Amino acid sequence: MYIVLVYDVSQEDHGTKRWSKIFKTCKRYLTHIQNSVFEGEISRAQLASLQQELKQYIDPELDSVILFKSRQEKWMDKEFWGRKDDLTSFIL
Amino acid sequence: MYIVLVYDVSQEDHGTKRWSKIFKTCKRYLTHIQNSVFEGEISRAQLASLQQELKQYIDPELDSVILFKSRQEKWMDKEFWGRKDDLTSFIL
Repeated sequence: MYIVLVYDVSQEDHGTKRWSKIFKTCKRYLTHIQNSVFEGEISRAQLASLQQELKQYIDPELDSVILFKSRQEKWMDKEFWGRKDDLTSFIL
Repeated sequence: MYIVLVYDVSQEDHGTKRWSKIFKTCKRYLTHIQNSVFEGEISRAQLASLQQELKQYIDPELDSVILFKSRQEKWMDKEFWGRKDDLTSFIL
């Protein structure tokens, strides 16, 4: 399946550390395309594994992760307005 | 068509002002679901109108807007991990 994952990590309670862990974990499964946005092809098993790993870092009261899942990439057209490459992708 | 719109506005060069304008503009067309993420059903004409309006505020060198377009909402399953409601939606 093809997914888009977006997260919003609160700055409260060591948020920067959580953000970085979530970022690095997502980067191992998906392609980073914008600040807190990842996309990519992923199997059910990999998605379950990603969810388990992220559960360690996500504060369910403070942080939000949303997934948009589509059976195939071709069912989701992508369009860019403005800057295309992501400036943060080389930092971490 | 059904779209998910995510934006990343640089803090440089009055970024906060641009962020707020982009946020308020998107809110008139779509549903706000997370920090810089909107979704909703939209016609081609409305999307063209949204794009025209946002063009006034987006700095093409600094800011990134990505749209994921699907012909129908049912082709995109949505899943939440962590916090569901968005804390910022009542601020602006």
